[in-house]
Amino acid sequence: MTLLWNPQRPSPMPYHRYRPFHDRVRVPVTGRDWPAARLERAPLWVPVDLRDGNQALAEPMDTPRKRRLFDLLVRLGFKEIEVGYPSASRTDFDFVRHLVTSGAVPRDVTPVVFTPARPDLIDRTFESIEGMERAVVHLYVATSPVWREVVLRRDRAEIARTVREAAELMARRAGDAPGVRFQFSPETFNLTEPDFVLELCDGLTGLWDASPDRPVTHNLPATVEIATPNVYADQIEYMHRHLARRDSVILSVHPHNDRGTGVACAELAVLAGAQRVEGCLFGNGERTGNVDLVTLALNLFAQGVDPMVDFGDIDAVRETVEHCNRIPVPVRHPYAGDLVHTAFSGTHQDAISKGLAEHARRAAESGVPEREAPWAVPYLPVDPADLGRTYEAVIRVNSQSGKGGSAYLLRARHGVDLPEPMRPEFAVAVQEMTDASGREATADELYDLFAAAYLAEGEVALDDWSVHEESPGLHRFVCTLRVGERTGDHEGAGPGPLTAFADALTGAGVKTEVLELVEDGPVTFARCRVDGRAVWGAGRADGSPLTGSVRAVLSAANRAAR
Amino acid sequence: MTLLWNPQRPSPMPYHRYRPFHDRVRVPVTGRDWPAARLERAPLWVPVDLRDGNQALAEPMDTPRKRRLFDLLVRLGFKEIEVGYPSASRTDFDFVRHLVTSGAVPRDVTPVVFTPARPDLIDRTFESIEGMERAVVHLYVATSPVWREVVLRRDRAEIARTVREAAELMARRAGDAPGVRFQFSPETFNLTEPDFVLELCDGLTGLWDASPDRPVTHNLPATVEIATPNVYADQIEYMHRHLARRDSVILSVHPHNDRGTGVACAELAVLAGAQRVEGCLFGNGERTGNVDLVTLALNLFAQGVDPMVDFGDIDAVRETVEHCNRIPVPVRHPYAGDLVHTAFSGTHQDAISKGLAEHARRAAESGVPEREAPWAVPYLPVDPADLGRTYEAVIRVNSQSGKGGSAYLLRARHGVDLPEPMRPEFAVAVQEMTDASGREATADELYDLFAAAYLAEGEVALDDWSVHEESPGLHRFVCTLRVGERTGDHEGAGPGPLTAFADALTGAGVKTEVLELVEDGPVTFARCRVDGRAVWGAGRADGSPLTGSVRAVLSAANRAAR
Repeated sequence: MTLLWNPQRPSPMPYHRYRPFHDRVRVPVTGRDWPAARLERAPLWVPVDLRDGNQALAEPMDTPRKRRLFDLLVRLGFKEIEVGYPSASRTDFDFVRHLVTSGAVPRDVTPVVFTPARPDLIDRTFESIEGMERAVVHLYVATSPVWREVVLRRDRAEIARTVREAAELMARRAGDAPGVRFQFSPETFNLTEPDFVLELCDGLTGLWDASPDRPVTHNLPATVEIATPNVYADQIEYMHRHLARRDSVILSVHPHNDRGTGVACAELAVLAGAQRVEGCLFGNGERTGNVDLVTLALNLFAQGVDPMVDFGDIDAVRETVEHCNRIPVPVRHPYAGDLVHTAFSGTHQDAISKGLAEHARRAAESGVPEREAPWAVPYLPVDPADLGRTYEAVIRVNSQSGKGGSAYLLRARHGVDLPEPMRPEFAVAVQEMTDASGREATADELYDLFAAAYLAEGEVALDDWSVHEESPGLHRFVCTLRVGERTGDHEGAGPGPLTAFADALTGAGVKTEVLELVEDGPVTFARCRVDGRAVWGAGRADGSPLTGSVRAVLSAANRAAR
Repeated sequence: MTLLWNPQRPSPMPYHRYRPFHDRVRVPVTGRDWPAARLERAPLWVPVDLRDGNQALAEPMDTPRKRRLFDLLVRLGFKEIEVGYPSASRTDFDFVRHLVTSGAVPRDVTPVVFTPARPDLIDRTFESIEGMERAVVHLYVATSPVWREVVLRRDRAEIARTVREAAELMARRAGDAPGVRFQFSPETFNLTEPDFVLELCDGLTGLWDASPDRPVTHNLPATVEIATPNVYADQIEYMHRHLARRDSVILSVHPHNDRGTGVACAELAVLAGAQRVEGCLFGNGERTGNVDLVTLALNLFAQGVDPMVDFGDIDAVRETVEHCNRIPVPVRHPYAGDLVHTAFSGTHQDAISKGLAEHARRAAESGVPEREAPWAVPYLPVDPADLGRTYEAVIRVNSQSGKGGSAYLLRARHGVDLPEPMRPEFAVAVQEMTDASGREATADELYDLFAAAYLAEGEVALDDWSVHEESPGLHRFVCTLRVGERTGDHEGAGPGPLTAFADALTGAGVKTEVLELVEDGPVTFARCRVDGRAVWGAGRADGSPLTGSVRAVLSAANRAAR
C-alpha cells in the first residue's frame, strides 16, 4: 500500500544496533483475557518513594524530609509503604530505626524494607526492623540473561541457589514473628525467561510456606521498560495463570517509564491479574521514573472507581513531594500540572463555558448541589474542584482564545457579564491586544481593556442631568452636553427616561436610538443605533439602575463617534 | 480472595460523580488482532506543534519562533507538518502566508492547515494557502454526544449535513488543484458512536472521491483521553476493519495524554491498523499535552526499527523546542530529560560499569567500533551517544551510590583507576562524606577526597631518597625519614627497590611489607601490610614509575598510622 505523497526517508540513526524485544524474550501466551477485562477496583498501591524514588535523587532525602513524606503517604491512605534499603546506607538504616522508635507507623500500615540476597545485608535489614510490629522484608535479585552474564556472572542454577539461601536465612531471622511477611522481586522480570521466574517464585511460595492468611508478594518489575505495554500484560497474565498456590500469592507489578508507557503497563497488568502496584507519587524514580501512583489512582477515580486513596487536595500533595524530592512536577503532568485544567483556545473555552452552565442547570433541575452532581463537562475529564482546585485557572486568554474566554474572565473575576451578542465585538479588541503583545491577557488586563473601550470618557460628555416624569408615559431629560468642542444645554422628551435622553442626544447632533437594554450586575449594557450604526455601550450603575442605563447609552454614543 | 493484611479504606473523594467509559460508549469488537501484532515500521509522523501545540501555550509563538520550529521539523525529517489554524487569528494566517511567500517549504514536505466546518472560515483557510504547491486542508467537527448536545446543539443529522456542506465547499475551492488533499477529524472520536464516525468518514471518502493515489486522511482523535489504551486500540481496529475504500484512506490517530497513556494509545493504535500519528515534540499540547512524537520515534529506534526521523542530537532539538514553547522538558522525560541516562544507585552504577566494559570487550573482539556494536548495557535501553549525549552524565554519586560509581568517576574524569579490591575502602569514605552532606558528590570532590586520603602528607615523611642496585637482585634504599617527631637517616636492603624501601621503613619503626603493586595510569597503587594490618596506598608517578611506587608504599604507611 503506497499511501503517502511524501514518503518519509530512512533515518541516519543507528537503529540496527538494537534488537526487537521479541528476539530477546519469548513470551508464551496461553490465554489472553486482559484485552476484554475492565478496571473495577483499586489494586493495593505501594509507594516506593522512600526507596526506589529516593535512590534516584541527586540529593537524597534527609530524615526530616523522609518523615514528612512518610506522614503524607499515611495521610493519603496508603497501607503498605516501602520505607528504605536499610543495608545500603546509614541514612536509610537510621530512618527505619526512627520509624520503629518514634511511633510514626499507625497500626494499619505495614512498612516494607528492601534487601539484596546477601547474608550480611539480610542480617542488617532484620536489625533495622527489630521491634517493628509489622513489616514486609523484600528480597530482590536480578534474573535476566544480560544481568546474569554481565553483572552477576552466575548462571540460573547459581541464582536459584542464592535466592534459596537468602530466603532460608530470612525465614530463620523472622522466626515465629507473625508480623513479618515476605516479598520477592525477580529484578528485570520483563527480560527474564518466564519459566525461570516461575521456578524462583514457586520455590519461594513453598519455602516460605505462604498461605491465604499469610501470603507472599511476588513483585514482577519492568525494571527497564523495553516493550509495548501489551507485552507486559501478556507476561503478567502468563504468571497470573501459572503461579503455584495462586491464592497464597499477591501478584504485584513495578513498572518503570523508559518508554513513557509506565501508566499503561500498570493498568494493563491489573487487567491481566495484578493485585498490587508499586510506584511513586508523580512518577519520581530511576531515570524516567517509577510509574506514577497519582495518575493511576485518579484514572480510576475519573472512571467512577473508588481510588482508595485521597488526592482531594492535589496541590498540597504536590507541594510536599516537590519539597522532599526537590524536583518540580511538570506543568503538563496529568491531574497535577499547572496547565492541565487550563484552556486557552477559543473553541475549548466556549465548550467549557457551555458545559459548566449545563452542569449547573442540570444540578439545579435535579436538586443536587453542583459539587455532587454527575460530571460531564467538555475538555475537563474531572472536576478540578474534586482535586481542591478552583475554576480560576481553567480559562485563560491569549491570541488563540475566542469570545468565550474573555467573557468568562470578565464575569468570573470582575462581575461584568457581557451580553452574548456583544462578545464578538469585545473579542476583536482582545485579539488585537494579544496579537500585538504575543502574551496571555490577565483578567485585570481584560477589565482595563473593557473599561478603556466602554467606560472611559469620550467625544460626547454629559453634565448636570436630571429626568422628570411630567405625566404618565412622558419623560423629560434635561442636561448639559459637550459634543466635541461644542457645549450646550439640551432637553429631550420620550415615553421613558432613556428615550428622552436619546432625544436630547439627537438634539445635540448625535442621532441616537436605544434598541436594547441589559441590566445585569454592576454594569448596564445598551445597544443603540447611533447615526445609523448599531453599537454597544456600557455603564457602571453604582447602585442606580437609571445611572447605569444613561451611562450605557452615552457610552454607545461615544463608541459610534470613534 | 482476601489477600491483604492491611486493607485499603474507601476514599472520601466523590468518585460516584463519574461514569465508567464502557457505560458511555459501546465499542463493538468484531476482531482483535492488535494484541498479537508487532511494531515493525514507522507510521507517518505528523507534528501538530504549530497548531494544537501552539494553541495550548500561555504565550503562543510569534512568527520567528514558528519559523524556527518549522525549520527544525523539516530538518528532523518530518514530511507532513500541521502549520496552523489560519482562520483563527491574524498571527496564524500570517504565518501560513509567510510559508507560501518565503519558500520555506521544501518540495517533499506538505503543510496541513486546520479549519472548522464554517463556510467563511473555510474560505479564509483557502485564502491562506493560495499559491502553495501542496497542502492538506484539515476539516474538523466535534461528533460525540456531549459535544453535540451541550456545545453544538445539533443532532447527528445536522452534524452530518454541516460536514457534507463544508466538504462540498472544500472540494469546490480546491477545484482541480492536484496539490490539495483533504483530511477529516471527527473531534472527540473516542467518545462518539462508532457507527456515526463510519457514516461521516465513509461519506467523505466518497464525496472527496478518494483514491489510492489521492487518499483522504481520516484522523481519529482521543481528544480527551478517557479510557485505558486497549480500548482505543479496539476502537481503531474496528475502524480499520470497517472503513470503506480502505486503500484510499490514511488512518490517522491523534492521542492526548489526560490519563498519562498517550504514548501507549498511539502504539496500540498502530498495532491496530493506524498508519499516521499526530503529536508534538516532547508532548506539548492542550492540558496534559498531545502524544510525544520524540518518545514514539525513539521507542521504535530502541527496538531496532528505523524511526524515519533523526533525533541524533536530542539536546539541540530540546533547546529549540524549549525556546519556542517556553516550557522546559521535565528532567525525567523519556530519552530527553536531564536525569534519564543517570544512575545514582550503587547497584545500577556497578551494573552499568560492567556493561560498558563488556560492550567494549565484545566490540573489540568482533572488530567493530564501539559506537556501532550491538547495544545491551544494563539500565541503559539506548546508548546515550546515539542521542548525541556523553557518558559523563550517566553515573553520578551520592549517599545511595556504591563503590562502582565513585571508581567510575575517578577513572573517567581524573584518570585514576582504583584497583577493584581497593574500591570498598574508598567507598566507605565517600559514603561518610555524602551521608554527612546529604548532597551529590562531583567528580572533583571525589578526587579531592581521594587526594586527602591517599596523596596528602602524613605521619611518615620521606626526604632525599635514592636507590642503588648493588648487585643483581640486591637493592639498597637510602633516605631521610620523619616518623612523628623523630627524623633520621635510614637504609634498607632487598631484592627490589620497594622491598628495600620497606626494609628502611621497618628500620624506622614502621613495619612494612609490600603485598601487591598496581601501576596503571598516572597513579600507582600499593597494598602493604603495615604493623600487621593490610592497607592500600597510592602515589602520583609524575612520569617515574619508581617514584609512583615509592609514594604508594609511603601512602600505605601513612594510612596505617591514622
